[in-house]
Amino acid sequence: MTESATLGLFGLGTMGSALSLNILEKGFSLHVTNLETEVVGEFVKEAEDAGLAENLHGADDLAKMVAAMAPPRAIILMIPSGAPVDETIEKLLPHLAKGDTIIDAGNADFHVTRRRTAEVEAQGFTYIGMGVSGGEDGARHGPAMMVGGSPAAWSGIRDVIEGIAAKFEGSPCADHFGPDGAGHFVKTVHNGIEYADMQLIAETYGLMRNGQGQSPSEVGEVFERWNKGVLESYLVEITAKVLQASDTETGGPAVDVIVDAAGQKGTGRWTAIEAVRLGQSANVIEAAVAARAWSSEGEARAAGSAIFDAPRGDLELDEADLEAALLVGRIVSYAQGFRILDAASAEYDWSIDYARVAEVWRAGCIIRSSLLGDIAAAFRGDLPEGQLIFSETFAKLISEGLPALRRVVGAAVAGGHAVPALASALGFLDTMRTKRGTADVIQAQRDFFGHHGFVRIDGRRDQHGPWWD
Amino acid sequence: MTESATLGLFGLGTMGSALSLNILEKGFSLHVTNLETEVVGEFVKEAEDAGLAENLHGADDLAKMVAAMAPPRAIILMIPSGAPVDETIEKLLPHLAKGDTIIDAGNADFHVTRRRTAEVEAQGFTYIGMGVSGGEDGARHGPAMMVGGSPAAWSGIRDVIEGIAAKFEGSPCADHFGPDGAGHFVKTVHNGIEYADMQLIAETYGLMRNGQGQSPSEVGEVFERWNKGVLESYLVEITAKVLQASDTETGGPAVDVIVDAAGQKGTGRWTAIEAVRLGQSANVIEAAVAARAWSSEGEARAAGSAIFDAPRGDLELDEADLEAALLVGRIVSYAQGFRILDAASAEYDWSIDYARVAEVWRAGCIIRSSLLGDIAAAFRGDLPEGQLIFSETFAKLISEGLPALRRVVGAAVAGGHAVPALASALGFLDTMRTKRGTADVIQAQRDFFGHHGFVRIDGRRDQHGPWWD
Repeated sequence: MTESATLGLFGLGTMGSALSLNILEKGFSLHVTNLETEVVGEFVKEAEDAGLAENLHGADDLAKMVAAMAPPRAIILMIPSGAPVDETIEKLLPHLAKGDTIIDAGNADFHVTRRRTAEVEAQGFTYIGMGVSGGEDGARHGPAMMVGGSPAAWSGIRDVIEGIAAKFEGSPCADHFGPDGAGHFVKTVHNGIEYADMQLIAETYGLMRNGQGQSPSEVGEVFERWNKGVLESYLVEITAKVLQASDTETGGPAVDVIVDAAGQKGTGRWTAIEAVRLGQSANVIEAAVAARAWSSEGEARAAGSAIFDAPRGDLELDEADLEAALLVGRIVSYAQGFRILDAASAEYDWSIDYARVAEVWRAGCIIRSSLLGDIAAAFRGDLPEGQLIFSETFAKLISEGLPALRRVVGAAVAGGHAVPALASALGFLDTMRTKRGTADVIQAQRDFFGHHGFVRIDGRRDQHGPWWD
Repeated sequence: MTESATLGLFGLGTMGSALSLNILEKGFSLHVTNLETEVVGEFVKEAEDAGLAENLHGADDLAKMVAAMAPPRAIILMIPSGAPVDETIEKLLPHLAKGDTIIDAGNADFHVTRRRTAEVEAQGFTYIGMGVSGGEDGARHGPAMMVGGSPAAWSGIRDVIEGIAAKFEGSPCADHFGPDGAGHFVKTVHNGIEYADMQLIAETYGLMRNGQGQSPSEVGEVFERWNKGVLESYLVEITAKVLQASDTETGGPAVDVIVDAAGQKGTGRWTAIEAVRLGQSANVIEAAVAARAWSSEGEARAAGSAIFDAPRGDLELDEADLEAALLVGRIVSYAQGFRILDAASAEYDWSIDYARVAEVWRAGCIIRSSLLGDIAAAFRGDLPEGQLIFSETFAKLISEGLPALRRVVGAAVAGGHAVPALASALGFLDTMRTKRGTADVIQAQRDFFGHHGFVRIDGRRDQHGPWWD
């Protein structure tokens, strides 16, 4: 399947419509349909109004769309994850011909994508799991895309995907990272890093707002300054905007009218779970997932605030310390994300190109930041123990920022402000710089109560302590 | 099945032999066999030497053992978890009669136990998943046992299980906590708490050893003192012993010849994974699992120690502060364990009796401690928001210990000593006492980039920020 495929898209919701307009705008032909037929007409109208309907073919349903498409076909599913995807695949299969491709462009648990790939390809068709990041705006004007599937499948859709992808200095932010679940796994980890970065930002905001009594707009100005420096990134940019926004009803800060309970879809949890399963414990991402879970326990936190002392509001932190702490936290969250990719790539034999992952994330996606170019360079250079934090560039940034991170976490700890993600980043770094840790005690305990044995420092294995003599 | 069952045991390894001798010593008849037949003769000899062979019947293999047993039969499997259990069930089924029971007494992923229960009971037999804690010594003289299965199945083995169980002030440390996977789940969470407690102890040791230059035996004396107070527990007791033990070869501290890489079986990871899956993020247990994973990265930590500054050795902490910090950390790890039990009990409709869980853990198991009686009392009393940390007893202990935990974590953070579990306990408590957190910023970000919407503080749902006007 090297010949370019006829393109179809099922699912004209927010993301599907935006992606379709993007595809049409880039000059590709596109067949579209939707579960509720009436939506198809509305979308065609929208495309006409935008002057993009020339190469658009609306169909009443999946069967008619497929029939109208010349093989080989590539059909993008942009629908809710889970059962709807399995049901749609069921409906599609009878209408497909050999060489046709199904592309799941929603988020998916990569284990499920592996299963679907095996099932669909066993029937002679091609399956691609593709992560799409960037929200509605990214889908419309250029998302970052992470593709998993066979090389042949990739070659059949590469032109379109690279054509509609975000561009960083002309280079498309889309690539093929391996077979079956590789693309969805890279997207899952992207979202895990996104969770961590958002939590680190929220904790830094909390220290300024609740610890130092600064107003949201004042803190927003700080983030606006930071976005011109080492923290330059989409998330810091939009944080500056949302913190400076006023609620249209109250006239007060917009964030102050928002209930402090963060929602989550599956991807953050998936990242934390896979990290543990792969023996990689990404504790900054874990902390972010935990913080979202606990944010939904508002009544319990209210009860706790009545039982225990309140946090102190007399912190006096350097803005530069907060900036450095957030930077180091961000570096660790990226580093932990790549550790997970490395572990999964080894377990599933994906041989993911980490430098390319970093480059694909440089534009279009939510975690795009100025750090990603340095990360790509680091993966192409000398990487002691394969650890990003040990690369020359990042070891230097971490060494410079570590004292500030200590001061910030120390002040938060003393003042009673919860900074689980910042503290986790520090705990990880302090662990990875401790040559001899304290697991010797744990091994001694395990040998004492379970006769598990241990390795002696001279290398002899299955040794037991004197408590067994 | 109210009539008491004939007892058989398959798997005469360390745990199986110890449990068999325990069963015989308590006066019950027992049939035994093993995969390698020669082991059966060796065990019978061992039992004879111990004067416990009177009611013992050795068999050459499973089929012969089952044939020799009068129905209804209860066959305990004490073998490695995973495939061996499925294979053994396969081999057993053809020889069983209606009313016979298979008891998996090893550790098992409760999801697997649920699957096995359904499969075995679909064929008219009974299945029990039973967690056994206490190591070899516990199995021999009285373990804590956590049973999952049908009430009928429980009534058929209750006499034996309560007979061989550890006793706390005369009451047996064994109970039935619900159907199918409930027993193995309670055991899994027990092990998760065990991981957390061991890590908290190891971190406290590290602060005294590496932060204050105390020798292992000096630190061991501290733990010996602590075991006479609020920290009284099996793990603190054995920590005092292992730290004061001398290596028979070098004459130096035994712990100093042990490689600082902690092994782990599945249960710690399972607890962390299930907690996240159930939206409960047990961050102290997560920290303990992470610390074990990172302890195995000795080469990376050595590289890190050459790149970054070493931790400082000039800490001056009060022994009383360390004691209080460890106590609060322990309380949080128990509390998080019970939060996981509560979430699972709700999801699987197990109606676990948490007070009974605490009581069963008071003797025989690895995490037995003087706190468990108070925990049982707390669950029988008034529990605000269902949170152990808000009960009168524990809210008081936490309030008293929190300043000490702050000083200890603060000193560790400043000195560069990794205390991920202690810091996680503090982060959890500081989160649960913060009435208004910072997730409002996260919700604002999510609405900005993904149009996810948020709840306004006045209760209106699906609201959007001014950035969409």
